[in-house]
Amino acid sequence: MKPATLLSLALLLFCSTPAASQQSPAAAAAHAYRQTHEREIISEFLDLLSLPNVASDTPNIRRNAALITRLLEQRGVKTRLLEEAGAPPVVYGEIQTPGAAHTIIFYAHYDGQPVEPVKWVGGDPFKPTLRSAALEAGGQAIALPEKGQRFDPEWRLYGRSASDDKAPIIALLAALDALRANRIALGSNIKFFFEGEEEAGSPHLEKIIAAHPDLARGELWLICDGPVDQTRRQQIVFGARGVTGLELTVYGPRRELHSGHYGNWAPNPAMMLARLLSTMKDDDGRVLIEGFYDGIEPLSETEKRALAEAPENDAMLRRELGLARTEGGGQKLVELINLPSLNIRGFASASVGATARNVIPSTATATLDLRLVKGVDHRQAVARVVEHIRKQGYHVVASEPDQATRLAHPKIIKVIKEGGYNAARTSMDLEVSRQVIGAVESARGKVITLPTSGGSVPLYIFTDTLKTPTICVPIVNHDNNQHSANENLRLQNLWDGIEVMAALLAMKEPGSRAPTGTK
Amino acid sequence: MKPATLLSLALLLFCSTPAASQQSPAAAAAHAYRQTHEREIISEFLDLLSLPNVASDTPNIRRNAALITRLLEQRGVKTRLLEEAGAPPVVYGEIQTPGAAHTIIFYAHYDGQPVEPVKWVGGDPFKPTLRSAALEAGGQAIALPEKGQRFDPEWRLYGRSASDDKAPIIALLAALDALRANRIALGSNIKFFFEGEEEAGSPHLEKIIAAHPDLARGELWLICDGPVDQTRRQQIVFGARGVTGLELTVYGPRRELHSGHYGNWAPNPAMMLARLLSTMKDDDGRVLIEGFYDGIEPLSETEKRALAEAPENDAMLRRELGLARTEGGGQKLVELINLPSLNIRGFASASVGATARNVIPSTATATLDLRLVKGVDHRQAVARVVEHIRKQGYHVVASEPDQATRLAHPKIIKVIKEGGYNAARTSMDLEVSRQVIGAVESARGKVITLPTSGGSVPLYIFTDTLKTPTICVPIVNHDNNQHSANENLRLQNLWDGIEVMAALLAMKEPGSRAPTGTK
Repeated sequence: MKPATLLSLALLLFCSTPAASQQSPAAAAAHAYRQTHEREIISEFLDLLSLPNVASDTPNIRRNAALITRLLEQRGVKTRLLEEAGAPPVVYGEIQTPGAAHTIIFYAHYDGQPVEPVKWVGGDPFKPTLRSAALEAGGQAIALPEKGQRFDPEWRLYGRSASDDKAPIIALLAALDALRANRIALGSNIKFFFEGEEEAGSPHLEKIIAAHPDLARGELWLICDGPVDQTRRQQIVFGARGVTGLELTVYGPRRELHSGHYGNWAPNPAMMLARLLSTMKDDDGRVLIEGFYDGIEPLSETEKRALAEAPENDAMLRRELGLARTEGGGQKLVELINLPSLNIRGFASASVGATARNVIPSTATATLDLRLVKGVDHRQAVARVVEHIRKQGYHVVASEPDQATRLAHPKIIKVIKEGGYNAARTSMDLEVSRQVIGAVESARGKVITLPTSGGSVPLYIFTDTLKTPTICVPIVNHDNNQHSANENLRLQNLWDGIEVMAALLAMKEPGSRAPTGTK
Repeated sequence: MKPATLLSLALLLFCSTPAASQQSPAAAAAHAYRQTHEREIISEFLDLLSLPNVASDTPNIRRNAALITRLLEQRGVKTRLLEEAGAPPVVYGEIQTPGAAHTIIFYAHYDGQPVEPVKWVGGDPFKPTLRSAALEAGGQAIALPEKGQRFDPEWRLYGRSASDDKAPIIALLAALDALRANRIALGSNIKFFFEGEEEAGSPHLEKIIAAHPDLARGELWLICDGPVDQTRRQQIVFGARGVTGLELTVYGPRRELHSGHYGNWAPNPAMMLARLLSTMKDDDGRVLIEGFYDGIEPLSETEKRALAEAPENDAMLRRELGLARTEGGGQKLVELINLPSLNIRGFASASVGATARNVIPSTATATLDLRLVKGVDHRQAVARVVEHIRKQGYHVVASEPDQATRLAHPKIIKVIKEGGYNAARTSMDLEVSRQVIGAVESARGKVITLPTSGGSVPLYIFTDTLKTPTICVPIVNHDNNQHSANENLRLQNLWDGIEVMAALLAMKEPGSRAPTGTK
């Protein structure tokens, strides 16, 4: 049985989307509206995906901000660009709802991960393409249907940020349209906060928020980012892992050497780095760095129950991903993301393939990302890695070693530390948490709740700095190639997402301000 | 003291080039001729270096062959292109010397290693540039001097194959001119055998030689390839290491995964490969693969004495290369190249630097080269590596694993074996060996003799298949960036090389045919 077939079967068994008649009025209105406006929604999406959106590409990132501003203003949203020198602007929007005392802030980000066009089918990540299915399932490019014609919900839209994270922006815009078309009132004051450098690590987010305390004030931040469960069931996530990274460069001879004339004599930096990395994890993926798991904040009873109830997708995923084994001593994926992780996200030394040459490389570089959970500070986690490297006999430098340094130390490594941020988690036991679960279930039926996402968004700014409950409501498919080439969005996920966003926009006055809402 | 200064000091101490008056007539004639023809020699060299010469670049490789043919014919050499389907031609040339009964065959190769233009200063490996010194010593591009003006012998000529291996071809051509201008007779029949795919592993050399047994017949093959000693002293090398290679690809998930959502769970192929490679060598560079050092043929007394007398350049080289340590348990470089070696010549998985993304890579690839010595068969050496990989729990495949293979095996590696060849060594105790030493010393004074080069040339074809003594006479500088970007030639090495080639061309009737000349 092919994995796709297995997955379809699982979806039939597990999915419990209610019929429109069982949905809340807001979700049902969104459902009906979408069915008659698919072409318009997708056209708007295509315009947005056509704008290159790597955070460092300033002219294009500003074109994204300008288009999103226009799309919000067309819906009567009062907008502002929140600027910080050297940063892409935050696109901020606001709707005052008559009689509402409370405010929900919807967060999303409009920038995307860097791209390697040569790895994209079609060669251009910013030429969005509709396909009849996922590429892996033989999806073919298809033309945009005429207005009024239906879209197959299993079609996929390919392009950078189709899922991560422009889809929620489009879903919110369509949900606003649907509510207005059906004269359904918003449930509270609404703010939109669309960031432009999340994939670059949100280096200015905290500063921008600090500069605009009034705009950032609300009773609830809703983070619209990340994928739904691998079964395609809706989930709500109450936290996110923190993240940081390091780039490690080990030095061999000052120049590449002929491997024949110097082999056996000149130390090989690729081998040195391989040996160093091999000391960091055991064969089962457990991190061997001293103290790496120290300080982790334990889960509450509700959180443990949520994990126990979460679907176990591991066997299905292993099949989909072609893996005969996973790491983590038999624990399931949803449990393992409640631990910090250390990952080699890239390794490079000299060349492989057609340009391989018989040399002893001069340097070898690996880049690591660390994912962090509540109780582990990102600076401390990096410090533990660096301390481990020192214990392996390395002299650690922060820039290219000079000749004196080279001659003084047999093993030299350059460590470039990235910025980062800590994990955050909002309690599932808050009143506002129960309200959000109720609203989303009114659109999508029984949901999965998880204490944390495996991925990272800088939730600490909202939970720890602003002291505001923060809940993540993802909408996109898990198999979207997020962060890689050929990123895509399954249309049904967008359709469902519009209903979820409509239900949240119409949700009545989320729980009063809760300074103890974080844990 | 800067390394360049130290090196200069060492050169003053060690170099013992005789004054022209102490040289043989042939070498002295070459010396005088060169002094008045530097511009012409370099102009011819620039033309040759301007032709791209990667073996797989058929149209350009044929342009190289055509130019070399023309240059030989201009000197009255009778030429032929030796063709084999799919191979760059061998440029063959022949001079019958009246009264000569014996024949010397001069081997060189006109193809070069693949290039990565972006790594070359100036961006074009085939736009040869004269520089005032090595780039590392601040060398600046300088214009070609006018005819009659002298060239500083410390200038360097930058371009792919400036050293490896077009320099000996130019040296031979200039030496022929010098002998003719001074009416000095050749000492025997001369053949030129210039190969066009040595850097691609000489896959057709054996076949081409087998197809032309008469042309390949002679009393001595002289291999004009490789660098002289790091002290810049002339050396003569009586063997070469064999070489082979493997490309290893370890498989992780079918597609790159978000490191947050799947970190701790999906095995990381870069980490798996790092762990695998780390089992292959210890921290001192000793290969841990079972049987790797088995079968090595011991050195003779003469060979051991030669190694003991060889200069110990290790401290100087460590300084030049910025290395605080070397591998090999304290043995010196000239000794260590008499052992087989295993080298990581490249490693790649996902991306580092500006295009790094937070992913679990889908694959990781490392490419290894093995250097072999007499007594170790290249196929057996590769088999030992593969057996070692199996012992680490890997399922070894020869092509991309399919889904069934992926799901059946927790650790999968694709091993692509390259072609290769065995090491060869000619005894230093043969009469012809002593003659060659004498001729070269008549040009350059006391020489260093070594049982083997660290690098590889397919000498086994001459020694083992043709049963002909084979001796390597290198001329280029060791610090030539051979096989890397910014390859270069120090002009003094070319000037000296012309004198060496003239002495060898004039050498009288090398020892009679010696079927036992190899060991």
